[in-house]
Amino acid sequence: MPRYRLAIEYAGTRYSGWQVQKNARTVQGELLRAVREATGESATDLQGSGRTDAGVHAVGQVAHLDLPRAVAPELLRRQMNDVLPADINILGIEAVPHRFHARRDAVSRSYVYQVARRRTAFGKPFVWWVKDDLDVRAMREAAGALVGMHDFRSFTDSDPDEVSTDVLVDAVEVKEDGALILVRVTGSHFVWKMVRRVVGVLVEAGRGQLGVDQVEGFLEAHSLVPARVTAPASGLFLERVVYPGEQGVGPLRAITPI
Amino acid sequence: MPRYRLAIEYAGTRYSGWQVQKNARTVQGELLRAVREATGESATDLQGSGRTDAGVHAVGQVAHLDLPRAVAPELLRRQMNDVLPADINILGIEAVPHRFHARRDAVSRSYVYQVARRRTAFGKPFVWWVKDDLDVRAMREAAGALVGMHDFRSFTDSDPDEVSTDVLVDAVEVKEDGALILVRVTGSHFVWKMVRRVVGVLVEAGRGQLGVDQVEGFLEAHSLVPARVTAPASGLFLERVVYPGEQGVGPLRAITPI
Repeated sequence: MPRYRLAIEYAGTRYSGWQVQKNARTVQGELLRAVREATGESATDLQGSGRTDAGVHAVGQVAHLDLPRAVAPELLRRQMNDVLPADINILGIEAVPHRFHARRDAVSRSYVYQVARRRTAFGKPFVWWVKDDLDVRAMREAAGALVGMHDFRSFTDSDPDEVSTDVLVDAVEVKEDGALILVRVTGSHFVWKMVRRVVGVLVEAGRGQLGVDQVEGFLEAHSLVPARVTAPASGLFLERVVYPGEQGVGPLRAITPI
Repeated sequence: MPRYRLAIEYAGTRYSGWQVQKNARTVQGELLRAVREATGESATDLQGSGRTDAGVHAVGQVAHLDLPRAVAPELLRRQMNDVLPADINILGIEAVPHRFHARRDAVSRSYVYQVARRRTAFGKPFVWWVKDDLDVRAMREAAGALVGMHDFRSFTDSDPDEVSTDVLVDAVEVKEDGALILVRVTGSHFVWKMVRRVVGVLVEAGRGQLGVDQVEGFLEAHSLVPARVTAPASGLFLERVVYPGEQGVGPLRAITPI
């Protein structure tokens, strides 16, 4: 059965996340519908590198797609884009060996979060506007405490009995870019809600409400604080998924809605 | 009567243009409502540097506002933003002498148009996606023919008996920026629909459908061709309005919805 690798961007605003659901509009659901409309046949498998939550965006989501019959990848891309909603866009399709698995083979993932320091007429669906002054140095210091292998139980609603909450975080970058503060979190994988809670904790640190000691404490013992400061979905983008042999991410930049 | 100068950005998608109208949502109408809600009093005058059409955006619209009573400009800005829709944002308010007039005093205006060379999940309201290959050199050559003082009658629906269609165009820049082709038109003033027809003609030139001779011909005799190729409003941004003593525009860049 032929397998294809898809590179996908989407604005998550109108969707109940990636994962297909009954009675809800999802990105995976729209892609499955587009496959049917474009090819006249149903996908036998379509799996993303990971699920993004409701309202979360992606510029570099990767999925694998199995079809009953081989197709010309570039033609399929155009045919699917013709029937997809404007806020989901397939950037590329290529044939891959059947052993390629979008989730299991991914070696690294990065998310970018956009915090806006001012009101914006264009950016509302793509930022979190924080009105308070933020101390970027304090945010960076707190970010440093999260790098490495830690138990991120305080940062997730996943059940630690079901999913390991030990996560290796490769980097947490904080960068000023005009009216934006960008946060990029890179790691092998993440647990549910973790990135938004990391950002929420960093913003509290930037507000002077949390010190590095407290942030370190969230990794040592379970705390309800990160959950209380979860950053909204609007500012979050799945930026990049890296597979064996591929280069990691480049310099941190604002996600420009083209 | 105290007068204030406002710097305003807006996403024009949901609006029937700048100019207040009965039974239609307009940017000027929203601003007048915000003044009333923020101050409890009605503006005695609110005039923009120019009218933008339905669907056209602005990052640097300028208006003057007369109020019956003096207010603290920064407080007014925050109070108005608190009651404005998310897609209209007041960037700044300052007290100005009563002789300042947003339209009459403007010495130069610039518009940026964003042509997209690929489908985009984020940019649809802010670009015109042109699927054909475009020859940027041919676009630049055609742009050169439009610079200077010309009769732009072929480029407007304004009645030449009512409005002079002689316009001095200072510059028409064409620049590739990733997946975008940016066109910036700078001039003392423009006539109705002119910028969108200039862009439409340049895109036809880029498609190889119009040569420089034909573009020059549109300036010499009336032609219906520019009207037929009017570029859609979505890609157009009022970028900057310059007043005496102020610096002109900087390097041409994509309008980043923050």
